[in-house]
Amino acid sequence: MSSSQTTPKVSIIMGSQSDWNSMQHATTVLDELDVAYETKIVSAHRTPNRLYQFCDEAAERGIEVIIAGAGGSAHLAGMAAAMTWLPVIAVPMSSKQLKGMDSLLSMVQMPKGVAVACQAIGDAGAFNGGLLAAQILSLHNPSLRKALQQWRAQQTASVAEEVAS
Amino acid sequence: MSSSQTTPKVSIIMGSQSDWNSMQHATTVLDELDVAYETKIVSAHRTPNRLYQFCDEAAERGIEVIIAGAGGSAHLAGMAAAMTWLPVIAVPMSSKQLKGMDSLLSMVQMPKGVAVACQAIGDAGAFNGGLLAAQILSLHNPSLRKALQQWRAQQTASVAEEVAS
Amino acid sequence: MSSSQTTPKVSIIMGSQSDWNSMQHATTVLDELDVAYETKIVSAHRTPNRLYQFCDEAAERGIEVIIAGAGGSAHLAGMAAAMTWLPVIAVPMSSKQLKGMDSLLSMVQMPKGVAVACQAIGDAGAFNGGLLAAQILSLHNPSLRKALQQWRAQQTASVAEEVAS
Amino acid sequence: MSSSQTTPKVSIIMGSQSDWNSMQHATTVLDELDVAYETKIVSAHRTPNRLYQFCDEAAERGIEVIIAGAGGSAHLAGMAAAMTWLPVIAVPMSSKQLKGMDSLLSMVQMPKGVAVACQAIGDAGAFNGGLLAAQILSLHNPSLRKALQQWRAQQTASVAEEVAS
Amino acid sequence: MSSSQTTPKVSIIMGSQSDWNSMQHATTVLDELDVAYETKIVSAHRTPNRLYQFCDEAAERGIEVIIAGAGGSAHLAGMAAAMTWLPVIAVPMSSKQLKGMDSLLSMVQMPKGVAVACQAIGDAGAFNGGLLAAQILSLHNPSLRKALQQWRAQQTASVAEEVAS
Amino acid sequence: MSSSQTTPKVSIIMGSQSDWNSMQHATTVLDELDVAYETKIVSAHRTPNRLYQFCDEAAERGIEVIIAGAGGSAHLAGMAAAMTWLPVIAVPMSSKQLKGMDSLLSMVQMPKGVAVACQAIGDAGAFNGGLLAAQILSLHNPSLRKALQQWRAQQTASVAEEVAS
Amino acid sequence: MSSSQTTPKVSIIMGSQSDWNSMQHATTVLDELDVAYETKIVSAHRTPNRLYQFCDEAAERGIEVIIAGAGGSAHLAGMAAAMTWLPVIAVPMSSKQLKGMDSLLSMVQMPKGVAVACQAIGDAGAFNGGLLAAQILSLHNPSLRKALQQWRAQQTASVAEEVAS
Amino acid sequence: MSSSQTTPKVSIIMGSQSDWNSMQHATTVLDELDVAYETKIVSAHRTPNRLYQFCDEAAERGIEVIIAGAGGSAHLAGMAAAMTWLPVIAVPMSSKQLKGMDSLLSMVQMPKGVAVACQAIGDAGAFNGGLLAAQILSLHNPSLRKALQQWRAQQTASVAEEVAS
Repeated sequence: MSSSQTTPKVSIIMGSQSDWNSMQHATTVLDELDVAYETKIVSAHRTPNRLYQFCDEAAERGIEVIIAGAGGSAHLAGMAAAMTWLPVIAVPMSSKQLKGMDSLLSMVQMPKGVAVACQAIGDAGAFNGGLLAAQILSLHNPSLRKALQQWRAQQTASVAEEVAS
Repeated sequence: MSSSQTTPKVSIIMGSQSDWNSMQHATTVLDELDVAYETKIVSAHRTPNRLYQFCDEAAERGIEVIIAGAGGSAHLAGMAAAMTWLPVIAVPMSSKQLKGMDSLLSMVQMPKGVAVACQAIGDAGAFNGGLLAAQILSLHNPSLRKALQQWRAQQTASVAEEVAS
Repeated sequence: MSSSQTTPKVSIIMGSQSDWNSMQHATTVLDELDVAYETKIVSAHRTPNRLYQFCDEAAERGIEVIIAGAGGSAHLAGMAAAMTWLPVIAVPMSSKQLKGMDSLLSMVQMPKGVAVACQAIGDAGAFNGGLLAAQILSLHNPSLRKALQQWRAQQTASVAEEVAS
Repeated sequence: MSSSQTTPKVSIIMGSQSDWNSMQHATTVLDELDVAYETKIVSAHRTPNRLYQFCDEAAERGIEVIIAGAGGSAHLAGMAAAMTWLPVIAVPMSSKQLKGMDSLLSMVQMPKGVAVACQAIGDAGAFNGGLLAAQILSLHNPSLRKALQQWRAQQTASVAEEVAS
Repeated sequence: MSSSQTTPKVSIIMGSQSDWNSMQHATTVLDELDVAYETKIVSAHRTPNRLYQFCDEAAERGIEVIIAGAGGSAHLAGMAAAMTWLPVIAVPMSSKQLKGMDSLLSMVQMPKGVAVACQAIGDAGAFNGGLLAAQILSLHNPSLRKALQQWRAQQTASVAEEVAS
Repeated sequence: MSSSQTTPKVSIIMGSQSDWNSMQHATTVLDELDVAYETKIVSAHRTPNRLYQFCDEAAERGIEVIIAGAGGSAHLAGMAAAMTWLPVIAVPMSSKQLKGMDSLLSMVQMPKGVAVACQAIGDAGAFNGGLLAAQILSLHNPSLRKALQQWRAQQTASVAEEVAS
Repeated sequence: MSSSQTTPKVSIIMGSQSDWNSMQHATTVLDELDVAYETKIVSAHRTPNRLYQFCDEAAERGIEVIIAGAGGSAHLAGMAAAMTWLPVIAVPMSSKQLKGMDSLLSMVQMPKGVAVACQAIGDAGAFNGGLLAAQILSLHNPSLRKALQQWRAQQTASVAEEVAS
Repeated sequence: MSSSQTTPKVSIIMGSQSDWNSMQHATTVLDELDVAYETKIVSAHRTPNRLYQFCDEAAERGIEVIIAGAGGSAHLAGMAAAMTWLPVIAVPMSSKQLKGMDSLLSMVQMPKGVAVACQAIGDAGAFNGGLLAAQILSLHNPSLRKALQQWRAQQTASVAEEVAS
């Protein structure tokens, strides 16, 4: 899944395999900008030890940004942020009944002292999670910054003014 | 804080000192029924290792029921439930802006496979957390069960029929 | 429906036949851990006398935990908790328009003095209702506790780390 | 509190003494139209047998309309409606955290087959509960109907057109 | 549409033809109990004069209870209640985006002085609207009351205790 | 209250005297731009005939824009829009329990065919109601347009860049 | 897309092509009343410079009313209103998860000093956006006003009184 | 307000002076970690040109992270993110009626293609905005990273285990 053989700088984690359908949108911009990433299933609730270990090792492994997607009582991003100083981007998954309002409030309402960077619910949020990771990495990576600016210019240019009816 | 010198069977944990104002209501029924308990501050976000250690040792220390109160992105109860097989009672604290709706959804919408026993938001929920702990313990403690039944009968008897205007 | 011929310790009640589609998930863990249970339709609104009688006899019949599923103005769990000292696990059913937010608030916002153990809305909540019942029963049943711990370890082990794309 | 010594036709019940502050507004129109009523505390959760007995006897005692106020997991009106054929007017009390949205959904989202007549949250709902009771009774009481029509005309006349600034 | 040739006592009005799919459930109990009713489309917004005229004449025509269904900014029931002293039962229609939460709040949050009897959102609310109308009419119609009591007993008897799996 | 002796072009109506505290903010911009207006109490629920008459005469009296403020089940703006072709600006008043969410949904979710111009809840919405009225009138009033543009430029200029701490 | 070759007086802008499915309903009344309009895609987020330029030129080009449709974090209408003195009608698009509640709150809760005219979520809101634009333009266009009044009379006349079952 | 005379790397912008009461919490961690910052009032609605210019120059001036606080229809963060490639941290201000739920949804539900990093509503969100900015900057600033890690360790150490009652 990683976009190249270089050490991944972005780690995309999610609470279960069923989140992948949305979370794969986090890879779009990273692929287009050639940012190396990894993807893993880490469940705060079903695999808490895996989460502890993941957070313990992430910075040492060269990860610079974590993107965490989860739904319902979505504890993954907040717990990751509690256990590493790396920026953690939270992506609330849409949920069956409450359509992700539960995931959003579980993720965004973090108490003073432990922060996440919360995105929109669902696919758009996952997509933007990858985009924000690239923005953060581009602060100290001039070639990535240039690629990002081109990506944005291209996005702007691609918006037709005429409505196709 | 424990109601007697016997080993506590109930552990009341909360995310911060500021939760105590509500969480102390969890001790009312335990005190009245003479159930031994302990109280601790364990923050999922600010002290994740303390939480890990707490869960690792709780059953061994003789704890049988955990009551966990937290607010906002309230991860304490769900993470405790992820790391111990003991029943975990979740008490959503009222929050400054969303009045505990964030705490409630963060706690109650647990995914399949890790359960908590969620209570009402705020003081009533904390009070009932202590009551439910007593109900659970009374299943195999006949004298406690008798005391609990008397407590309930007393509660019913204390409801005046006449409205005092 | 009961998993063995022994006297059921768990009673799964629901407001109508239409709740069974969700409530059957409450039996999964009980079946896997060989905990005897019964299932019944008891409507707080359409069969209030049946509910009174059910609560009056439940403890005497050997029931130790009640799991109650209902939707909309979901009064079943709270009324059961009002009429027996046994722990009552509340499972809010998803509802047609409000997706179970009405059921959740009807169940979880119990006043001080009568407690339920509320679960997530829908299937996950029903599943966890069975799990929590097993956790409660395992407190004084060492072999069940051992089976429960194995079930949890198995659940953890079954979470693949790799995302299947 | 009853407005006359005649047998009350309206019974105003509420879940606790603390509801009286709002529920007393239910008596305003009844007093003004000289409709006899009674007031009682009947808690669905803390005094379920009292509720059962109340419903069993209400019609026989000459009660024609029940006004039931409760808050949070507000089960009083729905359970009363389940146990008597008399019209039951539901008044959702404002609640500490959720401002009565929990009370409203607990009361209004009744399943097919058992109906209540739900009012607005809080004082206005209580006031209108009394008004609706009078409207119902006036259907077959010409003098009450006349008094009600005068009351309405008076209300309309009392609305000043000019804004007092 | 009326269940007999006698003068209708219940008028079922709705904001548009599209509400009929839900509102027809209001006729079930009326048909079963042989209560005469009429059905009409009266839009508060598109036909305000028709609404004024309807309210002006309803009582004179022998109508005793009005059941009004509408969705979104649902003004029909409240405006009808403003223009007649007859009891008005409000049925919030489910709406495309907000699933009737807009309809519910538009209907139930009536100000002090003008009351409606609000039902649940959608089909169940429509069904119960017819039921409540019958309850109100039965207060002074002994044969209807008897039929209503039999209907309720039949409903209770029809709830199977066994779950069909 | 009218800003001059000229015939008012804007009519500010509100459901009750208690709305004036918020609705007076609708006069700020009108006063500053010297647009003549009137203020009236017109209650959809308590004075439906006054509303009917008001709408019938508004255009003939020279009113060009109506600003209608109401709270809870806020029917005033929608009913006014149903009975006149003039643009109706809706201002949802904050309500005691639901903080105007009920007023907002009652006003904004108008069905296809009858439109209002909804503003924010409370004082800001009332202020902007007056502003929007001026914008509409300025379309064909060059001197008002010029004054409005100056007002806007002044507003922009008055925003200090430095934070005063 | 414009209904005639005359200079458009109404500009219908939307955040993306995907909004057209709803926003096309804004053209219905304009077409029926023969009001010239244009349609454009202007994204506040993806094409901010286009938005600045659009607002800068709109009044000079003869546009008198802007109808802006957007979803989610819907900033289009508010930003347009910030950059032109023309009336801006806001149409909240339904969104995938939150069904337009996010769009509605993003659009309607404008701060004091910059106003929009918010419509209902989705198709009905788009339809009414076109209708309101016509109402505003008709204030100083007698022939349009006459056509609008006929349109409204026709709408009223087309509401059948009988329910088609 | 800047913590040192060095060029600021973080720009804290807010929609109005009234946001400063909350937004000042964004400076706490930046002050403690000696990160240079600036504070400015930039209103998306009242000063759109200032916002345009600010975004145009921010990166050139050496700003690396923007923290944007706004309330209600909170467009500031999303519009800033639309006009610069720098990471933008969004802080939803609590609002008078809806307590920041409007601000939160206006900020967090960004469409695919333009991302913000959303924080909790109010003071905690502002505080965490500063913290997240420091986390992002520390990725390529080893001494800052070390200071941040010490800050976190200190925070953890300061959480007393004992409840002070």
